[in-house]
Amino acid sequence: MPRAGRCDPTPLIELDASVKHVLVLGAGKSSPYLIHHLLQNAEAGGWRVTVGDVDERMARERVGSHPRGAATRFDVNDEEGRSSLIESADVVINMLGPMYQDLVAWDCVAHGKHLLSVSYRDQAVRDLDADAKKKDVLLLFELGLDPGIDHMSAIQIIHGVRAKGGRITAFRSYGSGVPAPGQDTNPLQYVITWNPRNVVMSAEHGAQYMEDGAIKCVPWHHVFHHTWPVSVDGVGEMEAYPNRDSLSYMQSFGLEGVHTMIRGTLRYPGWSETWAQIVRLGLPNEHLRIPRLAERTYREVTEMFLPLSHAGPPIESRLAKFLQISPTGRIMQNLKWLGLLADEPTGCRGDTAAAMLVDLLSKKLPLRESDRDLVILLHSMDVEYPDRPAERITSTFKSEGKAAGFTAMSVSVGLPTALAVRELLDGRLKLRGSRIPTEPEIYEPILAALEREGLKFEEKVERLG
Amino acid sequence: MPRAGRCDPTPLIELDASVKHVLVLGAGKSSPYLIHHLLQNAEAGGWRVTVGDVDERMARERVGSHPRGAATRFDVNDEEGRSSLIESADVVINMLGPMYQDLVAWDCVAHGKHLLSVSYRDQAVRDLDADAKKKDVLLLFELGLDPGIDHMSAIQIIHGVRAKGGRITAFRSYGSGVPAPGQDTNPLQYVITWNPRNVVMSAEHGAQYMEDGAIKCVPWHHVFHHTWPVSVDGVGEMEAYPNRDSLSYMQSFGLEGVHTMIRGTLRYPGWSETWAQIVRLGLPNEHLRIPRLAERTYREVTEMFLPLSHAGPPIESRLAKFLQISPTGRIMQNLKWLGLLADEPTGCRGDTAAAMLVDLLSKKLPLRESDRDLVILLHSMDVEYPDRPAERITSTFKSEGKAAGFTAMSVSVGLPTALAVRELLDGRLKLRGSRIPTEPEIYEPILAALEREGLKFEEKVERLG
Repeated sequence: MPRAGRCDPTPLIELDASVKHVLVLGAGKSSPYLIHHLLQNAEAGGWRVTVGDVDERMARERVGSHPRGAATRFDVNDEEGRSSLIESADVVINMLGPMYQDLVAWDCVAHGKHLLSVSYRDQAVRDLDADAKKKDVLLLFELGLDPGIDHMSAIQIIHGVRAKGGRITAFRSYGSGVPAPGQDTNPLQYVITWNPRNVVMSAEHGAQYMEDGAIKCVPWHHVFHHTWPVSVDGVGEMEAYPNRDSLSYMQSFGLEGVHTMIRGTLRYPGWSETWAQIVRLGLPNEHLRIPRLAERTYREVTEMFLPLSHAGPPIESRLAKFLQISPTGRIMQNLKWLGLLADEPTGCRGDTAAAMLVDLLSKKLPLRESDRDLVILLHSMDVEYPDRPAERITSTFKSEGKAAGFTAMSVSVGLPTALAVRELLDGRLKLRGSRIPTEPEIYEPILAALEREGLKFEEKVERLG
Repeated sequence: MPRAGRCDPTPLIELDASVKHVLVLGAGKSSPYLIHHLLQNAEAGGWRVTVGDVDERMARERVGSHPRGAATRFDVNDEEGRSSLIESADVVINMLGPMYQDLVAWDCVAHGKHLLSVSYRDQAVRDLDADAKKKDVLLLFELGLDPGIDHMSAIQIIHGVRAKGGRITAFRSYGSGVPAPGQDTNPLQYVITWNPRNVVMSAEHGAQYMEDGAIKCVPWHHVFHHTWPVSVDGVGEMEAYPNRDSLSYMQSFGLEGVHTMIRGTLRYPGWSETWAQIVRLGLPNEHLRIPRLAERTYREVTEMFLPLSHAGPPIESRLAKFLQISPTGRIMQNLKWLGLLADEPTGCRGDTAAAMLVDLLSKKLPLRESDRDLVILLHSMDVEYPDRPAERITSTFKSEGKAAGFTAMSVSVGLPTALAVRELLDGRLKLRGSRIPTEPEIYEPILAALEREGLKFEEKVERLG
């Protein structure tokens, strides 16, 4: 329970100087289990935990009254506050949106603090490798579910295949966070279990992969049209769209010789055909600032994205015509159900159509108390051996959340990071520099610990050809 | 002429400490006239000039052997070098790409130096207003042609109309840099006279404007389909596409009451229908890194953006089908002429399709020695008066470059900045903070000086209705 007046990051009990300070930045949807786990293990591990978020109330709720926990208001754009909080930490965990990662990473390097992050390692933080090594710190990125457990488990399979003399010829890896099957959630069969901004801006930089030796580049406005079916054991047929730059992982994974290299995202069939139209319309835009957005209706904002029309048919018909979709079909029903044509003010605190979409998705696609979410990771690799027939290895990870408990998303994003904190503070994890978890020293203890917690992959091997 | 071995930014002659130091960052296509003008006026103005560019040879060529000039290698990403060079200046002029502007602006504020810049004032530098005032420095953005002279001239008209009791109801403003008419340049009737990267990534964040009271938002993949004809005196009919966020200028210009607010870019008819297809294909992408781009052929890279096909019809037919354009029509001819299907290695030093386009445009659309360029600014404002009929004021600025001399682009981008340097160093320009040139104190002396240099607007007034 939050306690009134509590706003400085000082733990309730007196702790001696040997107690390490773990700082969690960001208390959003992916953080609850991470914070819970860190607090639960704080005494045994010999650390204390501070949670910082721009929403201090939420940070306090996550910490509760734990004697080794503290909450504080944290505004990543406040340079001084950011720097001094990071300086006070031994390990910093970044759960903030990807656009803030480099600010946090720079401060960690400046103050010589380790950083664990669940976001992608972009070029800005990749470039910090030499500086991090100079300062004797580890900057470890892509340590959540996807990116995170997906990499660790993939590389474990790859290393295993190599140890047996095999050679991987095709690599396909999919990640997903959706409602658990068999629940009647909503027409889009999707629920928001992570940062909705990342759902709205998904694929904004396009995607790239290799199939049968051919590199394929897909711009944002084609990504959600560019789908294919993928069957998941125990779930059924899902749809996949390509996820970011798959090719960059050929080097990270040592897979330069493959003819197929695909990382994709899975949804229940039907999500992509609707989202493709929202992208075509142009709504996920964080640059154009719409004046007085809060007072305008959703219908008015959608109208802005259509060609000029003063009279003529109603917006429904013009929208369908502009997008070349059926005015009465499933996609149009979904757009209406989502509220894009609603005649009520958006009340949006942001000033872009993307901010409006974030609000709409949060409102229309919540995970209700009674709902359970499902996370899926699926690897499918084709392997050649010198002395036996080629095989396809399929490795599937599925984890369901508990109704009214931690989401599967929160557990699977937070647990690898929580386990890495212990490896790091106990001195077993000695790697330094800017990294992703592709070395046995990182992934082996974490995957083993995940398995002890019941988070494990099912492997299936089929003979090919 | 460049002199061998010259690489430190120390002028040739001994100068006393009262001589001010003007630092120009960026020696690209827009900079030659600015540097020429600053050097020509250096003695009279009491300043010296250092030009920094990552291409030191180019910086040296621009400076020549002028006794008050110096050239230096300048890498904006080298934090220490950037900071110390800026610290040595009295006024910094930013001619670098827009993505580096905030780095330069931060250092200028940190060291208490004035900054003049020809790029757009984005939110990051807008936020420096209070800090700049605290440090008693001026950060003046949008000081080139477009943005720059367009703002200054527009606001001068607006202030003039207000002084006469008029009220502006519609504001349309267009900018352009194209080959002068009557020359046989190339099938796209376009030449590169400014940073080709900005041509390639043009409209990447979409565009927004207001027409007859309705806000219109246009995502990138529609912008070049979203064109309309605009007639320019002495040039003929051109095509316009919307330029960035026009609405943000309603506040800057005090035009909150207008029903039409459009900023647009003009090209000769036909450019946009071709560029629209290049955007649709997805080539202007700075995020996806294409492995071994230099060795691949243009044809191979274009193939990457098409759906997978191992056999079947040739790329020409598949490209036409994918883009839904005629396989033999003008657009396809242009794409082929541009070299997108050429069977030769790209030799590109960058690693993205956007970098490849930058190379191609630079190679295929150069301004040849014998060519002249043309810059155009066109304002069209509807005005209501309490005591007389409504009017449409059309104000047109055209400036042609000289063959083998300075381009009109370089003159019109550089001159306002060069003039502002004098206003600032002579102490007449006393404004401080993060600004664009919308105050009479800035625009009046500059527009008057431009007119003395022969750069002036022709105004036409028609009665409306």
